Amino acid sequence: MLIKSYTTAIETYLNQLSFKQEPKNLYDPITYILNIGGKRIRPSLTLMACELFGTPYVRALDAALCVEMFHNFSLIHDDIMDQAPLRRGHKTVHTKWNLNTGILSGDALLILACQQLNKYEGIVFKKLNELFYETALEVCEGQQYDFNFEQSFEVSVADYLNMIRLKTAVLLAAALKFGAIVAEANEEDMNQIYAFGLNLGMAFQLQDDYLDVFGTDNFGKQPAGDIISNKKTYMLLKALDLVDSTDRNTIVHWYSKTEYSTEKIKIIRQLFKKVKVDILIQEEIAKYTQLATENVRQLNIAEGKKEQLNKFATDLMQRKI
Amino acid sequence: MLIKSYTTAIETYLNQLSFKQEPKNLYDPITYILNIGGKRIRPSLTLMACELFGTPYVRALDAALCVEMFHNFSLIHDDIMDQAPLRRGHKTVHTKWNLNTGILSGDALLILACQQLNKYEGIVFKKLNELFYETALEVCEGQQYDFNFEQSFEVSVADYLNMIRLKTAVLLAAALKFGAIVAEANEEDMNQIYAFGLNLGMAFQLQDDYLDVFGTDNFGKQPAGDIISNKKTYMLLKALDLVDSTDRNTIVHWYSKTEYSTEKIKIIRQLFKKVKVDILIQEEIAKYTQLATENVRQLNIAEGKKEQLNKFATDLMQRKI
Repeated sequence: MLIKSYTTAIETYLNQLSFKQEPKNLYDPITYILNIGGKRIRPSLTLMACELFGTPYVRALDAALCVEMFHNFSLIHDDIMDQAPLRRGHKTVHTKWNLNTGILSGDALLILACQQLNKYEGIVFKKLNELFYETALEVCEGQQYDFNFEQSFEVSVADYLNMIRLKTAVLLAAALKFGAIVAEANEEDMNQIYAFGLNLGMAFQLQDDYLDVFGTDNFGKQPAGDIISNKKTYMLLKALDLVDSTDRNTIVHWYSKTEYSTEKIKIIRQLFKKVKVDILIQEEIAKYTQLATENVRQLNIAEGKKEQLNKFATDLMQRKI
Repeated sequence: MLIKSYTTAIETYLNQLSFKQEPKNLYDPITYILNIGGKRIRPSLTLMACELFGTPYVRALDAALCVEMFHNFSLIHDDIMDQAPLRRGHKTVHTKWNLNTGILSGDALLILACQQLNKYEGIVFKKLNELFYETALEVCEGQQYDFNFEQSFEVSVADYLNMIRLKTAVLLAAALKFGAIVAEANEEDMNQIYAFGLNLGMAFQLQDDYLDVFGTDNFGKQPAGDIISNKKTYMLLKALDLVDSTDRNTIVHWYSKTEYSTEKIKIIRQLFKKVKVDILIQEEIAKYTQLATENVRQLNIAEGKKEQLNKFATDLMQRKI
C-alpha cells in the first residue's frame, strides 16, 4: 500500500474517535494538537510494518494511534519547555491557552495514548505495553539531555548522538516494532525492523538539524530556530571541534545570547560552511541511511516489500513525506 | 495486618527499587518527591484490599507502587499549576529545581507508574491497566474542573462534589480495587470495595477542606491555603448559598485578591462560622462515612476483616494515618 493510504487511514480513524467533551478546556487542546497537520510519519510506520509482516494494517490502528498521541503529548510539553510560540505554523497549546492547560492536557493526552493499547489482548498487549513505556521513558531522558546541553559547552558529538537516539530515533523504531508486534513477527525480524527505525531516526534527525540551518522550507517552524535557541546540534559540536580559537570565541559569544538575531544566524552559517560541517553532517546522514538499508536487506520478507520500506526511507529523507 | 505494617512494606519495597541514575536531573526529583514523607495511604489501601480478599499482600506491591507513583506524579504537576512553594513541609520540585524539570520529571514518573503494572500477567494485567488509565484520566479531569472553578463564582455544590470525586476519591477507590484485582476477588466485591473507596475519598477530601480552614495542624502545607488561593470549596460554595448580599459582597471582594492576607483568612473563617458551614460540612462528612460503612457491611469477607477496614477509615478520618 502507498504511504499516502496509511496517512489517510490514520486521519479517518482519528476523526472517528470521539473524545469526551468535558471539561472542554482539557479536551479541546488535545483535539487541536492532533489536527494541526502532523505528517503522521510514526503511525504510518506502524501500519506499514504490520502489513510488511503479513497482517492487515487495520489491526494496528490503535497501536499506531498510541504512537501518534504520545508524539503529540511530547510536542505539547516540549513546546512549553522550549517556550516555542509556533508548531506546524500554528500557535502552540500553551500560547493559545495557557501554561496550566498545556501541562494538564499534555498529561491527559499521554494517558489517552496508553489507553489505546487496551484494545489489544494477551501477549500482544503485554509486549506493546513493555515497549511503549521503555520508549516513553527514553524520550523523556532524551529531552532532559537536550536541556542539559543548552547549559553547557562540554558536550561531545557522541553525547549529542545519544541524545537524538533517545529523543527522536527510539520512537520511530518503536513505531515500526509496534506494527511487527501486532503482526506477531518473529523475534529476529522485530529486532531488525527496530534497528532500521533507529538508524532511519538518526538520519532523519540529523537531516532535520541540517534543514533547520540550511533548508529553504522551515515546515512552519522558526527558521534557524536551533541557532537562535543555542541548541548544541551535530554541526555546532563538530564546528567547535574544528574551528580555531578566534572562531570558537565567536561561537561562544553568540551562543550566550538568547534574543533573535539575523546577524547571529548569518555568522554561524558562515562558520559552519568554513569548517565544512554542512558536508560532514551529510556524510553522517549517509552512514545511517546505509545502515538502515542493510537492516532492510536482512529482513525475512519479500523483495517487493523491502523496496517499499526503502522507498519510504528515501521519501522521508527527501522530506517528500 | 496493622496499617503501619503496610506502610513499612511500601517503604521497604520503594527503597529496594533502583531507578536509573542518568540523566541525574530527571531522576533526582523523582527520588526526592517519593521520599519527602508521604503517608502512603493509597498504596496501603491496595495491600490491605489484596489481603482482605485472601491473597498475600506481597503480590500487590507493584500495583501499590503504581498508585503511589501516580499520586506523586500528580503532586509534582499540580504544585506547578497551583504555584505551591511547599509540599509536606519541603520545597516543591519546580521550586527546588525549575519549571522544566518539574514538567519532565513528572512525565517520567507517570510513565514509571505505568511500568509498575508490567510485572503482572494475563487478565490481572489487563484489568489493572484498564482501571488505571480510566482513573488517571478522571484525575486530570478533576484537576481541570478545580482550575475552572477558580475563575468562576457560578459553581454549584454538586459541581464541587463531582470535582473532588474525580480529583481525589476515584484514586482511593482504584487503589482498593487494584488490591481486589490482584487477589482476583469476585465482581460484586470489587465494585463494593470501589464504592467504599469513593465514599471514603469524598469524606476524606471534605475533611481535608475543613482542616485546611479550621485545623490546628496544617500537615506541612500553608495554613488556610484554600482561602488564600481562592479555592471554591464545599464550605465556600455553601456559604455563598446562605449568606446575605452584604456578606456575599465581602466574600467576592476577598476572593478576587490573590496575595496572602491574615485579615482575609480571619474574615472568611468568621463568615463560615456565621452561616454554620463548619457544621454543615461535618454532616456531609458523616453522610459519606456512613455510606462507606454500609459498603463494608455488604462485602463477602469475614467480620474481623470488615472491622479492620472500618478501623482504617476511622483512623484516616481522624488523621491518625
